[in-house]
Amino acid sequence: MSADRQVSACIIIIGNELLSGRTQDVNLKYLGEALGGVGVQLAEARIIPDDEETIIATVNECRTTFDYVFTTGGIGPTHDDITSKAIAAAFGVGLEQNADALSRLRKHYNRKKLNEARLKMAYVPVGASLIDNPVSRAPGFRIENVFVLAGVPRIMQAMFDGIKGQLAGGVPVKSLTLSAYVKEGDIAAELGDIQQNHVNVEIGSYPFFLDGKLGASMVVRGRDTVDIEAAAAAIRTLIQNHGKEPIPDEER
Amino acid sequence: MSADRQVSACIIIIGNELLSGRTQDVNLKYLGEALGGVGVQLAEARIIPDDEETIIATVNECRTTFDYVFTTGGIGPTHDDITSKAIAAAFGVGLEQNADALSRLRKHYNRKKLNEARLKMAYVPVGASLIDNPVSRAPGFRIENVFVLAGVPRIMQAMFDGIKGQLAGGVPVKSLTLSAYVKEGDIAAELGDIQQNHVNVEIGSYPFFLDGKLGASMVVRGRDTVDIEAAAAAIRTLIQNHGKEPIPDEER
Repeated sequence: MSADRQVSACIIIIGNELLSGRTQDVNLKYLGEALGGVGVQLAEARIIPDDEETIIATVNECRTTFDYVFTTGGIGPTHDDITSKAIAAAFGVGLEQNADALSRLRKHYNRKKLNEARLKMAYVPVGASLIDNPVSRAPGFRIENVFVLAGVPRIMQAMFDGIKGQLAGGVPVKSLTLSAYVKEGDIAAELGDIQQNHVNVEIGSYPFFLDGKLGASMVVRGRDTVDIEAAAAAIRTLIQNHGKEPIPDEER
Repeated sequence: MSADRQVSACIIIIGNELLSGRTQDVNLKYLGEALGGVGVQLAEARIIPDDEETIIATVNECRTTFDYVFTTGGIGPTHDDITSKAIAAAFGVGLEQNADALSRLRKHYNRKKLNEARLKMAYVPVGASLIDNPVSRAPGFRIENVFVLAGVPRIMQAMFDGIKGQLAGGVPVKSLTLSAYVKEGDIAAELGDIQQNHVNVEIGSYPFFLDGKLGASMVVRGRDTVDIEAAAAAIRTLIQNHGKEPIPDEER
């Protein structure tokens, strides 16, 4: 893929427990960073309930809009785990017992433990390839540009590590952050000018409170180190013109 | 609104910093819980970048699909704060300086501090009503069924507290959680039967590791306490039939 073209991804986080507020999601942050590291831009995330029609509609919309789609959650043994069935329906294919997946489950569970509920985890859509689960064996799967991962963070992370080599990313995005005890409103106009003068980077500004003082973190993101450092130098001068110094990383 | 009808909401979390993985979102969990508490079901959440076209398209899709829409982020003074402008465009109205918002900013900032960047925070779409910001004054706003809130969690929370009385919710959802050192795969079939026998509640199952042991939390959610307790009693019996006891709340 050309280095100029941005490779985009969408993640679909499936689970009623995230929408009810019972569970704090941590998969978005992990995947956002990990995808950026391989040159794939996380362009959108959706959190949706364990509802078959919603999963089908969301997957079908996102897989045509973005280069890659990652789903998390809903591939376990219980009645509320309906992701695999919904993905098969989204692609208009059947759900079949996968011999390799079955063999993995047989190595992990003895005959008595491998009951009907656990056997459900050996079913994947026709045409899918398996994604290794080094933590608890029950695999995820890939079908076309859709990667179906577990929802439990350490399993999801292990699965992603296994498949990230399959992703054709662009140039990874790098970032550089300058934080200072300046107030956003005091430096906003000049920071906007710096953004206009450095169009190859994206500058974000985020207020913070630290030790009872208000400050701002200015994040420069881009693909070229020279561009990033030029913008960062301008921001450093801006901070100094306001009588402050960037806060060293170790104090933040 | 009838108690039977579910009142739905979507939240749109706006910010490149959430998609890049720089910032851990906490607004989804807060709003999911808070909306549930006033009888509004959070049906979907979207995390999107600070991109005007994306904000416009997402707001216009969601405001016709859900009863309420809440956005967070992008209403500050810096160049990357474009939410207000995008919301105005989504509704096809202009962005105008609001006299009340201006007066609030004037009380908070002296003449020198109230520069052009900060004055931007007094502009809201024509027809919008203000949402109080007791933390740092710059208001959010409501236009039709869309509530535009700050992204900083403590400001967002204070804004939501101020407007939640405006929401016409249904019967609030209550939940009851039973956790035990049982493995999901061992109890999945029976738990599925319990779900089928208790259709007025929604039962979710979530694996956990605690003290090096695998367990599952089973969450019963519903609008009627009698229904919830009946399902919970069946789950308690299921746990005991597997030779375990529910873990008391204080040990979890």
